[in-house]
Amino acid sequence: MVDNLTIAIDAMGGDQAPGIVVDGISKVLESEAGIRFLVFGHKDKLEPLLEPLSYSKAFLEFVHTDSFVAMDAKPAQALRQRENTSLWAAIKSVKDEQAHAVVSAGNTGALMAMSRYCLGTLPGITRPAISAIWPTVSGPSIVLDVGANIDTSAQQLVEFAIMGSACARVLFGKDQPTVGLLNVGSEDVKGHDDVREASAILKENKLGLNFIGFIEGNGIAFGAADVVVTDGFTGNIALKTAEGMAKMLAQELRSSLSLNLMTKLGAMLSMSGLNNFKKKVDPNESNGAPLLGLNGLVIKSHGGTDGAGYANAISTASRLAQNDFTNRVINSVRNLNERMPASSESTDSDAAETNGSTPQQQSLAVSS
Amino acid sequence: MVDNLTIAIDAMGGDQAPGIVVDGISKVLESEAGIRFLVFGHKDKLEPLLEPLSYSKAFLEFVHTDSFVAMDAKPAQALRQRENTSLWAAIKSVKDEQAHAVVSAGNTGALMAMSRYCLGTLPGITRPAISAIWPTVSGPSIVLDVGANIDTSAQQLVEFAIMGSACARVLFGKDQPTVGLLNVGSEDVKGHDDVREASAILKENKLGLNFIGFIEGNGIAFGAADVVVTDGFTGNIALKTAEGMAKMLAQELRSSLSLNLMTKLGAMLSMSGLNNFKKKVDPNESNGAPLLGLNGLVIKSHGGTDGAGYANAISTASRLAQNDFTNRVINSVRNLNERMPASSESTDSDAAETNGSTPQQQSLAVSS
Repeated sequence: MVDNLTIAIDAMGGDQAPGIVVDGISKVLESEAGIRFLVFGHKDKLEPLLEPLSYSKAFLEFVHTDSFVAMDAKPAQALRQRENTSLWAAIKSVKDEQAHAVVSAGNTGALMAMSRYCLGTLPGITRPAISAIWPTVSGPSIVLDVGANIDTSAQQLVEFAIMGSACARVLFGKDQPTVGLLNVGSEDVKGHDDVREASAILKENKLGLNFIGFIEGNGIAFGAADVVVTDGFTGNIALKTAEGMAKMLAQELRSSLSLNLMTKLGAMLSMSGLNNFKKKVDPNESNGAPLLGLNGLVIKSHGGTDGAGYANAISTASRLAQNDFTNRVINSVRNLNERMPASSESTDSDAAETNGSTPQQQSLAVSS
Repeated sequence: MVDNLTIAIDAMGGDQAPGIVVDGISKVLESEAGIRFLVFGHKDKLEPLLEPLSYSKAFLEFVHTDSFVAMDAKPAQALRQRENTSLWAAIKSVKDEQAHAVVSAGNTGALMAMSRYCLGTLPGITRPAISAIWPTVSGPSIVLDVGANIDTSAQQLVEFAIMGSACARVLFGKDQPTVGLLNVGSEDVKGHDDVREASAILKENKLGLNFIGFIEGNGIAFGAADVVVTDGFTGNIALKTAEGMAKMLAQELRSSLSLNLMTKLGAMLSMSGLNNFKKKVDPNESNGAPLLGLNGLVIKSHGGTDGAGYANAISTASRLAQNDFTNRVINSVRNLNERMPASSESTDSDAAETNGSTPQQQSLAVSS
């Protein structure tokens, strides 16, 4: 257990920030979970929202920051203009060991760029990845990368498998989480060179991962693998396509149940079932995805989440911090890396540590 | 209008063929749509199923074929062993002008390989594509490629835009269907080289397409574009991921509405609304996707469809044939091609016409 667990909050990040952020914090404060908050944002926006809350100073410290990162800012530009932004200050508090984790619902590309720059990349990891926690019929899975790396080599796909596996061990408490490579078919000949080469490396089984081979898109929602590995382009599009589909279906279901008096009455009677359904499939319920491969715990919340969803992202951060997530991932990655075939690509962990270097913009093509 | 509209049927293709195929045919016969069928399959399987049907000889002709293509056969292997298969005979009947279109719920890779080989590729088209008809809140969209081409160049993405646009004109009756390129963000800097280069070509607007720029995955289900263009790897995974998500949600909804007596009663009262919902989102309702870029009309049905879904695929084939789909696409592609910047890649239409040549296996990586 971590004493005085502290979570840094980028209060200015999110489609409806800082309103829903403060709403999320207040829900956690009310639950008396004992979590301490370090909240970064502009005083003109935050003080009127924080004032009505009845919290002990011991549980919430507010730090004024002049500026913030716009949701549509380019990552490289955000990184250049990082000083005095709430996002940078929040990440830096993790680096300075003032907080155990940082949560942001802001610009994903900027969050990744600043986190890499400030916290550095784990030894042996070429590039960090953004994971998504995906609800399935048999509990959540981890899907990565969902947008940090547009062009992904076979070696990087293997690194994603390592990071995702380490993450699933901590997050789901499974000793040997299953790992699947997303592809257009399950046979060895399917897919492009990188995905086939990654499969060949993983099949050698020198890493000790529980690799189950290729899985197809329709397997994700049915829990075909605990860890679903793919490149950031495909992962981002698959994730958003599924989210759009789920949102469309929810909208059509609502309108179909308001068709007439009879269907409305029926919907009222079915309310407990419908709420049960909503709870199972609402992305807010599993909100909060860790960025993987960093020397520090960074949690991305959905940009469009509500207060309850933001509170869930804080819970995820708290659970991972309590379980010493970062060190366990570091150890797990180190153990696995020792068994990995040598890579011809250099890691950027040193570069990221060096003040002044800028992570390549090309890899940070995630939308906010 | 086409006189004596004839549809060739590969009765042995599909997860539950030939049962659901004959079921679909009998539904269409009962509707007295005036469609004539040319049914290919093994007599031991087909005759017992066809015998109980009361149909006039004028509307159904059965042709025995010794062999069939297995759902998991490799496309190149299927092509080598094509003789005497129901799939090949059905496609060939279109080439020989005995049928106006062919429908198969069988092995997609083999269907594409044989269609290319038998019918040939349209002039100016490097490779044909598999389209999917995608239900959205504002009517169906066309998404392509969903699996015929794993590695896709910028030039090919532009060709998909041309073919998809031509298809949407005929299928949706829209003069200027909107065309969007699937990407991880909407800004020009987003995505990999091929998608950015394709966007630059489409933006020059020399083709006269109604190109609206990049769209993201969550836009598909909301009808962000009439034609959604992407490479076959991403498209296949996005399609299957969304299908898996929809199937999972339907399953969870059913189980949530059977929670207790109250929810069951509510579901009964809401039945008309729930049926309305099912009708709107059931993939069987929009079953039947044309393969694009071929000198002939080839319709792919979902492999796992039921009789009603198969009947819908036949209806799609019939509607497209009635509307002289292939010639309209040919003309539309020709008009657009005349305005297209010269490509350095050769087309394979000549090769496909020459007997003995084998389309490259690498591009036919679609699962059945």
